Amino acid sequence: MTGTLFGVGVGPGNPMQMTYEAVEIIKQTTHIAIPTAKPYAADTSFHNDTTSASPQNRGVLALNEILTKCSAYQIALGQVPELPDKKILPVYMPMTKNAPSLEKAHQEGAALIQQYLDSGHDVAFLTLGDPTVYSTYMYVQQRLLPLGYNCRIISGIPSFCASAAELTEALSVKDEMIHVIPASYPTLDALHFPGTKVFMKSGKQLPRLLSELREHPELYQSVQMVENCGMPTQKCYSSLEEIPENAGYFTTIIVK
Amino acid sequence: MTGTLFGVGVGPGNPMQMTYEAVEIIKQTTHIAIPTAKPYAADTSFHNDTTSASPQNRGVLALNEILTKCSAYQIALGQVPELPDKKILPVYMPMTKNAPSLEKAHQEGAALIQQYLDSGHDVAFLTLGDPTVYSTYMYVQQRLLPLGYNCRIISGIPSFCASAAELTEALSVKDEMIHVIPASYPTLDALHFPGTKVFMKSGKQLPRLLSELREHPELYQSVQMVENCGMPTQKCYSSLEEIPENAGYFTTIIVK
Repeated sequence: MTGTLFGVGVGPGNPMQMTYEAVEIIKQTTHIAIPTAKPYAADTSFHNDTTSASPQNRGVLALNEILTKCSAYQIALGQVPELPDKKILPVYMPMTKNAPSLEKAHQEGAALIQQYLDSGHDVAFLTLGDPTVYSTYMYVQQRLLPLGYNCRIISGIPSFCASAAELTEALSVKDEMIHVIPASYPTLDALHFPGTKVFMKSGKQLPRLLSELREHPELYQSVQMVENCGMPTQKCYSSLEEIPENAGYFTTIIVK
Repeated sequence: MTGTLFGVGVGPGNPMQMTYEAVEIIKQTTHIAIPTAKPYAADTSFHNDTTSASPQNRGVLALNEILTKCSAYQIALGQVPELPDKKILPVYMPMTKNAPSLEKAHQEGAALIQQYLDSGHDVAFLTLGDPTVYSTYMYVQQRLLPLGYNCRIISGIPSFCASAAELTEALSVKDEMIHVIPASYPTLDALHFPGTKVFMKSGKQLPRLLSELREHPELYQSVQMVENCGMPTQKCYSSLEEIPENAGYFTTIIVK
């Protein structure tokens, strides 16, 4: 029988924020797929340069390096200590906007998982936060669902809910709207939306976003930010003045 | 020492979708506040008519009726079987838009909880979904936080993430935005937002929302709906044609 693909949200960072369902699915599943921003050294298709001694010199990573760098894996490990005994499938998800490179990586990732589903194994693909909100899992599901594979999404706490919680702040009350905006969208246009604006993963675009916020104080009541929400390195900022220009990639900015 | 107020999200319906953190906080806390849409019979301030025999005849409810009707309590009970042994504080949250009635109820609810915090008890206020997204908990926190009380939000899976999961559908990929829209907002204006539109708690407004969607098919690619997400009565609808006019209050409509 063909296996089932689970997209499992492990929440924003703290293993205590995982759901019982997510932990149960991970425990029951023998094959765990995890996203990696650099290719896996054991994957021979990426071995263009076999002369270098260290995998890192070739721009690829050994499995232990991938596991250390993968936040979703590290979070799950906090509730499922037997995770290292399972078969880990690193899925290469390059952080690039180059469409052909992305297409190639997503196709190869889907093909890798498809192979295990075909041989009857269930596969749990771990994602940070919630699988329905900007997750790499969706690139795999989008390819396998139309082929008739059984896919199930296991919800996780999205980082923007966890960020508002850390700020002890509502995202919305009464009839307020919430707008979740990826950093690539023009800030100034987004600031005109009524209600709460949540800017996600604003890392690289942060200086531009902050400068637009500083130029248009008439468009908002408050600006708050959480960096690395749920991680040991988490920091909260409760006003625009406090926010540094050089924050990391996992920043969530809440504008009211 | 003054107690801490916890706003605890129990997720959309399935106790398995509760987080480990939410369950731990509920287990550790002796006093559990729950919202009730009708006043609690034991609360003498609502006993206007003491001649009727049954509490229900007076528009008030006995504690066991409140517990049965409270979704958040029933969900938590699924993971915390010792819940009935705790001190339950029903907080009257009338479903009305009458501002003075709301203000009075919220003030009384905050005062009730304040009394227990002052006597050194921690209080966990249970909310369906996530406390930062349209929860009644916020009306209490908004009053107690400025008074210097220690308030902590424990995130839960919001119903719109769980609804997208049940539909095996992304809320957003790449640079798509997500707009969470309460039913009271004009549908037609909201349909012009770029990206994914999530209409929450559209119950009463459903016929108007559906008719506007039917009149403007050019404004969307797909319309899907989940009714009573995570509850035993859950139903999914994957197109506009399938959606009935008479759906319940807890409906989430996802328009792409």
